Amino acid sequence: MDYDKIIIGIDPGTNVMGYGILGIKGKTPALIAMGVLKLDKMDDHYMRLHRIYERVLSLVTQYLPDEMAIEAPFYGKNVQSMLKLGRAQGVAMAAALARQVPIHEYEPRKIKMAITGNGGSSKQQVAAMLQRILNIAPSEMPEFLDATDALAAALCHHYESGKPAFARGATSWKAFIAQHPARVVDSERHKKS
Amino acid sequence: MDYDKIIIGIDPGTNVMGYGILGIKGKTPALIAMGVLKLDKMDDHYMRLHRIYERVLSLVTQYLPDEMAIEAPFYGKNVQSMLKLGRAQGVAMAAALARQVPIHEYEPRKIKMAITGNGGSSKQQVAAMLQRILNIAPSEMPEFLDATDALAAALCHHYESGKPAFARGATSWKAFIAQHPARVVDSERHKKS
Repeated sequence: MDYDKIIIGIDPGTNVMGYGILGIKGKTPALIAMGVLKLDKMDDHYMRLHRIYERVLSLVTQYLPDEMAIEAPFYGKNVQSMLKLGRAQGVAMAAALARQVPIHEYEPRKIKMAITGNGGSSKQQVAAMLQRILNIAPSEMPEFLDATDALAAALCHHYESGKPAFARGATSWKAFIAQHPARVVDSERHKKS
Repeated sequence: MDYDKIIIGIDPGTNVMGYGILGIKGKTPALIAMGVLKLDKMDDHYMRLHRIYERVLSLVTQYLPDEMAIEAPFYGKNVQSMLKLGRAQGVAMAAALARQVPIHEYEPRKIKMAITGNGGSSKQQVAAMLQRILNIAPSEMPEFLDATDALAAALCHHYESGKPAFARGATSWKAFIAQHPARVVDSERHKKS
């Protein structure tokens, strides 16, 4: 099938990494693939990072996504776990950047809100909603919810890309104005007329 | 010049990344190159990560190091800064892992201790000691101490590699025994003799 846009969603972690590939045709999203990379049986920290890097690079090479969406918590239990998470995110990002794929990150709450309308939804609720939205057969649903979490990040990004920049929460007025010069009303001109 | 081993040292950060390349001939270390990658003028976080990845990949491709030594603090001000640092480390590590270069990390205190004998040394003291050990001409000394910090990580790794595993602080007795089966004294055999 021919898609207008392909989005790869990644839920990086050093125990399990989830991924989901979403194809967009017109405005309609469809599941292309999803899965997990299990790392918890590997003792070596660098081996885990290497596997994350290689898997993301191979997914990016295989599916040629236009954009990457990453589930990225901004807070963690402690500095140690955040450093580890940062490294897992870093190697996944390196693989995307190596192939010039732009990266967008979303907080878990934001992703849940975009999919179910409730930022406090469980992973199961997110998975069930994805199954309905994307018409996924029960037999195709993954064993690990890291896969649906990653797919949810991709779908969240699809919804966010469809919104005007202002509604997405442009980082600043300055950025918004720079992106949309035509929407600036010249107050001086109005005064004179 | 032909070296027995080449070590690349990296001091990763999202504002400045330092690097140093050390050549080892016999037991003698020599400076091959050092420098910094300045990132503080770049607004985009992903652009910074991309530049770190590309520079490390190009250094690894150019100098073909046998090993990488990274200066890696285990504690940080807060979870936010640790996440950022983890990402910077992650992309640098991805570049090394992409070229099958093994990674070793050292805490800043450990590096300072290895170079000057004092874990609380200043960056200037570390740089001055490196200048003496490696016979670096004053004109070759870098403007930014991130470069000498990276070189210090490489030299620290050289010193550590020369020590027996036990003195390096093998992670556990089990690991030590697995690495050195010949050093295990069979107590049963001794009893019987």
